Amino acid sequence: MQKIFEKVGGESVDGSMRVDAIFVESDFLRRYLTGFYSTDGYVILDGEHCKFVADLRYYEAAEKALAETPVELIEGGLGNALELLKPYKRIGVPFPFLTAESLNRLTSRGFEVVDVTEAFRTAMLIKTDEEISLIQRACDIAEDAFLALLPDLKEGMAEREVAALLEYRMRCWGAEGPSFETIVAFGENGSIPHYATGDRKLRFGDPVLIDFGCKAEGYCSDMTRTFLFGDDGEHEEFKKIHAQVLMAHELVKTQVKAGMTGKTADAVARGYLRGKGLAEYFTHSLGHGIGLQIHEYPLLSPRSTDVLTDGMVFSDEPGVYIAGKLGIRIEDSCYMKDGRVVSFMKKTSRRCIIL
Amino acid sequence: MQKIFEKVGGESVDGSMRVDAIFVESDFLRRYLTGFYSTDGYVILDGEHCKFVADLRYYEAAEKALAETPVELIEGGLGNALELLKPYKRIGVPFPFLTAESLNRLTSRGFEVVDVTEAFRTAMLIKTDEEISLIQRACDIAEDAFLALLPDLKEGMAEREVAALLEYRMRCWGAEGPSFETIVAFGENGSIPHYATGDRKLRFGDPVLIDFGCKAEGYCSDMTRTFLFGDDGEHEEFKKIHAQVLMAHELVKTQVKAGMTGKTADAVARGYLRGKGLAEYFTHSLGHGIGLQIHEYPLLSPRSTDVLTDGMVFSDEPGVYIAGKLGIRIEDSCYMKDGRVVSFMKKTSRRCIIL
Repeated sequence: MQKIFEKVGGESVDGSMRVDAIFVESDFLRRYLTGFYSTDGYVILDGEHCKFVADLRYYEAAEKALAETPVELIEGGLGNALELLKPYKRIGVPFPFLTAESLNRLTSRGFEVVDVTEAFRTAMLIKTDEEISLIQRACDIAEDAFLALLPDLKEGMAEREVAALLEYRMRCWGAEGPSFETIVAFGENGSIPHYATGDRKLRFGDPVLIDFGCKAEGYCSDMTRTFLFGDDGEHEEFKKIHAQVLMAHELVKTQVKAGMTGKTADAVARGYLRGKGLAEYFTHSLGHGIGLQIHEYPLLSPRSTDVLTDGMVFSDEPGVYIAGKLGIRIEDSCYMKDGRVVSFMKKTSRRCIIL
Repeated sequence: MQKIFEKVGGESVDGSMRVDAIFVESDFLRRYLTGFYSTDGYVILDGEHCKFVADLRYYEAAEKALAETPVELIEGGLGNALELLKPYKRIGVPFPFLTAESLNRLTSRGFEVVDVTEAFRTAMLIKTDEEISLIQRACDIAEDAFLALLPDLKEGMAEREVAALLEYRMRCWGAEGPSFETIVAFGENGSIPHYATGDRKLRFGDPVLIDFGCKAEGYCSDMTRTFLFGDDGEHEEFKKIHAQVLMAHELVKTQVKAGMTGKTADAVARGYLRGKGLAEYFTHSLGHGIGLQIHEYPLLSPRSTDVLTDGMVFSDEPGVYIAGKLGIRIEDSCYMKDGRVVSFMKKTSRRCIIL
């Protein structure tokens, strides 16, 4: 965690803006800096110390969790945290994760407040081995839940029930909860990229699109599978396009290398789909970073200048959506290792399985 | 929704600060103003118009949902929203629900930004009949899930599995998800008021504390039941204190009236428990407001000056926690009607049931 402070704190040779301390109030950044989860609390970081301010609700649990770490635990609320900031003048805060209310409190007390979002973004972009193994766990749980779901799918089930069943199993097997709102889309609903899971009932011959994931100790997984619930003989075009989306998905895994930009990676999938006349139906980006947040950096999109390197975690999720007709998305959570793309997903088929 | 603008907008007779428009970027406030849920978007409200700015992901769904409402839908992102603000000078925003990043964008474009949290708080404090009926639905789903859970409880089940099962049923029966992290605490774990549900296995004779709720169209329910999983003959003190906590809980329902402050309401339960020598173990407030957020106003606490009136929704949740020994909390979601406290919970027993 001190590496974030090293990027922004201390004396500056070139006279650029440096901060005396970093102040954090958001859930996932507290967890990033201390490893401890709570819905409330504050973290103060300087070149020597990392202090965690927690109220009585979390103090006992934090005491246990932080015992073997260099994090110092202090009981209290925002008032105590502001008191601890007193020795400092220039405070670094990631602005997208601070409320306007807290910003005003800091400035009204005379602190100079500096946006250090970039330092967090850079540090969080490259995952440690421990972070990679937590994401692997979140992916394993998601895949296991998907495998257990398939034999349970029955005609007449509502999208909502299927989502509930997936989430139930992930929770039983150690997930903290879904990493985002589970999307279960039957039939024509698959053509809406951000479909809100509803009450549509499953019918024989329906295409099924499921986009879901879970959190393990805060770290997210994200995967999508599209398949057929029985073959009614009327989905030949669906099968053909499914194979093309799958090819786009797999090309990313084989052709994307460290050193490429997010734009180049996106172009691997987009170029292939363009060759098949499907580019206009691939209406979103190829992928996004995954970590403590479900959407972070790097971006794999037509405009992204992010350079892919070892330790980055991102989704590979090409999709084709023809409004009112069909929607196919195939997504794995992946990471970059030894310069190449490695998928976290090893248990489930990406093919157009027919139940 | 225009009532919020009326409180803070337009010409001011006494020269106090008034705003030209209100700007909202947070999920639950967008939902409050428009009735439509999305993870992204902006709402701009002036004396005549309510404009909702949504990007392509949500445009189609928003178009359907807002067709019969006075809300105007505009496609775009933050840039478009800022463009729409151009005719105005003084912008009202609830500061706890705006990021420091957005505040800076507004001020750097020359807008004068004013905190209007109080206007939202006041408006959201009194629920409409429609809001009350959504909370009733969230409470019904939670109670149904609890009733269905009881016969499923078996020796050896982990706390985590029980939470998963409750959440599964709530989701199947129409909930969007849990309204907060479900607390399932077996045995000695019940004595930690904000216990994090874990892997402790259920044993014969265990006290069980379950604190949970769900969301129905954004509106929350919140309830707690404490009971025994079989009677091993060693819980006489537990039963005695359970009856006392229940009495404190019921006294609130019969004695609290409109016009009382949150402090007086809290004192009804606290005073009774003090008479039983238990005041020192009642370590939190009696209750909190419930709405689109799980914790809102009014507060029912030893310091609260909030005056209770018809249409307010709040929890009644006295608790007794003796560290390492026992924890008992009994909680209903309630509302004030015709000057009296009415519980949303009508299906489940609050008594110390023995399974």
